[in-house]
Amino acid sequence: MQDHRVVVVGGGFGGVQVVNDLKGAPVRITMIDRRNHHLFQPLLYQVATTLLATSEIAWPIRNFFRDRPEVTTLLAEVVGVDSEAHQVLLKNGQRIPYDTLVLATGATHAYFGHDEWEPVAPGLKTLEDATTIRRRVLLAFEQAEMETDPAIREALLTFVIVGAGPTGVELAGIISELARTTLPKEFRNIDTSKAKIILVEAGPRVLAAFAEDLSDYARRELESHGVALRFGKPVTSCTAQGVTIGDVFVPCRTIVWAAGVEASPAAKWLDIPADRAGRAVVDKDLRAPGKGDVFVIGDTAAVMRDDGSPVPGIAPAAKQQGAYVAKVIKAKLAGKPTPGPFHYRHQGSLATIGKSAAIIDFGWLKLRGWLAWWVWGLAHIYFLIGVRWRIAVAWSWLWIYISRQHSARLITQKETMREE
Amino acid sequence: MQDHRVVVVGGGFGGVQVVNDLKGAPVRITMIDRRNHHLFQPLLYQVATTLLATSEIAWPIRNFFRDRPEVTTLLAEVVGVDSEAHQVLLKNGQRIPYDTLVLATGATHAYFGHDEWEPVAPGLKTLEDATTIRRRVLLAFEQAEMETDPAIREALLTFVIVGAGPTGVELAGIISELARTTLPKEFRNIDTSKAKIILVEAGPRVLAAFAEDLSDYARRELESHGVALRFGKPVTSCTAQGVTIGDVFVPCRTIVWAAGVEASPAAKWLDIPADRAGRAVVDKDLRAPGKGDVFVIGDTAAVMRDDGSPVPGIAPAAKQQGAYVAKVIKAKLAGKPTPGPFHYRHQGSLATIGKSAAIIDFGWLKLRGWLAWWVWGLAHIYFLIGVRWRIAVAWSWLWIYISRQHSARLITQKETMREE
Repeated sequence: MQDHRVVVVGGGFGGVQVVNDLKGAPVRITMIDRRNHHLFQPLLYQVATTLLATSEIAWPIRNFFRDRPEVTTLLAEVVGVDSEAHQVLLKNGQRIPYDTLVLATGATHAYFGHDEWEPVAPGLKTLEDATTIRRRVLLAFEQAEMETDPAIREALLTFVIVGAGPTGVELAGIISELARTTLPKEFRNIDTSKAKIILVEAGPRVLAAFAEDLSDYARRELESHGVALRFGKPVTSCTAQGVTIGDVFVPCRTIVWAAGVEASPAAKWLDIPADRAGRAVVDKDLRAPGKGDVFVIGDTAAVMRDDGSPVPGIAPAAKQQGAYVAKVIKAKLAGKPTPGPFHYRHQGSLATIGKSAAIIDFGWLKLRGWLAWWVWGLAHIYFLIGVRWRIAVAWSWLWIYISRQHSARLITQKETMREE
Repeated sequence: MQDHRVVVVGGGFGGVQVVNDLKGAPVRITMIDRRNHHLFQPLLYQVATTLLATSEIAWPIRNFFRDRPEVTTLLAEVVGVDSEAHQVLLKNGQRIPYDTLVLATGATHAYFGHDEWEPVAPGLKTLEDATTIRRRVLLAFEQAEMETDPAIREALLTFVIVGAGPTGVELAGIISELARTTLPKEFRNIDTSKAKIILVEAGPRVLAAFAEDLSDYARRELESHGVALRFGKPVTSCTAQGVTIGDVFVPCRTIVWAAGVEASPAAKWLDIPADRAGRAVVDKDLRAPGKGDVFVIGDTAAVMRDDGSPVPGIAPAAKQQGAYVAKVIKAKLAGKPTPGPFHYRHQGSLATIGKSAAIIDFGWLKLRGWLAWWVWGLAHIYFLIGVRWRIAVAWSWLWIYISRQHSARLITQKETMREE
């Protein structure tokens, strides 16, 4: 009898967990991703803000499975699923057959019907997004140093971040730190510490997923870091000249989009129902409804907690789902009864605001301030895959902490938008 | 009396040395570069071959001068010099006045009249060049893993490096190491250790600048690393399908150009004579002939040794020239006699072939093998600017040495060429 063929699409937290946990099972696995690297997305904003280098948070996916001869890794783009024929369709026309399919294809940023904003207001989901934002932020200071028109200079020194979830808060906090701590001594014609960092949130408060007192602390910390907050009004327009908040126009040259998320098209590939954000609505055991051999996990699946609230789109949730699916597959192959439905265990919520400020909500424990910041840092170093990167990131952070100098301040690639 | 205005164009080894050595002099300095970073070019090939990350060998230029309020750093592109008006012309139309001008604008790769080869045979001068080569090398293995046609697969697994100077030798050695040591366990459909790495040299031997016995050792080392050598025939054509060496066509999908160098247009800006490679022919004190307040140094200047042979285009030569020019400027401002003509002191030639193999020629001492490799490594770590990077690079190398795993294997940016 041939080994059972498992195809996993997506080398993020969920997909990698499935493959890891299938170790030793009588399966042949094909891992497909359109990128060659797994990305430690929770730290992506640190690349965007010059704290970490790209290779500190990304690793070749195939390297994870070098000692697993039953795992084949393919760099390829999936464009559909033929669930009748049990095949995954690749962009190059090839078809990859499966006995069990796991779709863990993640999500991307969404502009609520305003995709035309993307060129001027990039989101933060890929390494290129991060280096694009890094380049724009650094170029804005460089151009302000050369600029003679005070109005344009002010627009160059205005940075608008849309969305006050964890990513928006983290970006605003560190861009402010960059402007106020790292850069002032390096410019002669401008005072970078006068840069305006504006965080826009359509809702009433920052970090709405956290308890109100923690959210309130985060707001005060942001304000003390010099971040200006605008609540209650949505962004109604983004252009190369600036952003309109409600009906107020703010001239600025750098906009970062941290507001919306849209699932990858897994639900469309399977032709199954999706929620408003495009997430595939799955059964309680994470199977696609009516397709017993297809699982959908992570940010591209709409999974509910026992209380009916949605499982959050964070790394631990994707990993738990990956581990669960591996268990289901192994049970089936061993002829054992299927485990019960998937239960999400929320381990806690963490967010940083800037140097020495963070909030943590473990449910049984709420923390804020410098202690929370250290716990956050140690937790993230611990969860980084591989000894080398843990040490490399720890060293980078330690150096920044001591020297107050950001290390990865590179402007690379051509930026056509900014070339006049 | 106003301070003397020195404008330095180019933040490479030569330009940075000028600014460093003018510390304390009664000058106001403007440093202009079209990139925001100084690049440690001798290690650029290690970024191209996944050994180091971009931010390990590049640093924001303005960061060097943060504690020098008399130094203004501008990110701008110089397009000409008005030596009558004593002004540097920027692309954006601005003019920067100078009392003394230092042009240290470097060189780029040259295709001997075949600029149409550049898209298929990138050279290695900038960070983007390095990530482009890295992406192409890694993508070739990825595509070979997916490819079903054996002829195309073989072309994908053939890597041609044109030019057997230090850069070509280093690239060939490490790409071979990548294919034979790092990657084999990660692919299932191809044997990466069967990849062909071909080093093409129109002349009769590798590393022609070295003594013949060292060159011969380098050749044997390359061959034992699995690099195929082709001597005595020039490349006559480069296309997306392959390379023609003399009149023999070799199908391949990855070509790296390490053959020719062309100076930046400093001589044209000044309207002074240049040599065949476009280098400005300067006086014995590195001044542009007939323009007593303009110096040209580094790779964009043709400087002769006392024996009439050219000063090599390497970092120590640029630094010595930068230090000399700073001395001349300081002497003039202090009303002291001008130092004698510039003398180049050759400190030695170093080149690596791959792990544990290098050659060193100090003149009074010739070294080869693992000891030379360690000396090479320590010398390069020593010359890296800044404590942090020294430690970071040392750590990266130590890790690679122990684990045999290259760390920076990221495929980023869109590669239109390879998208079918």
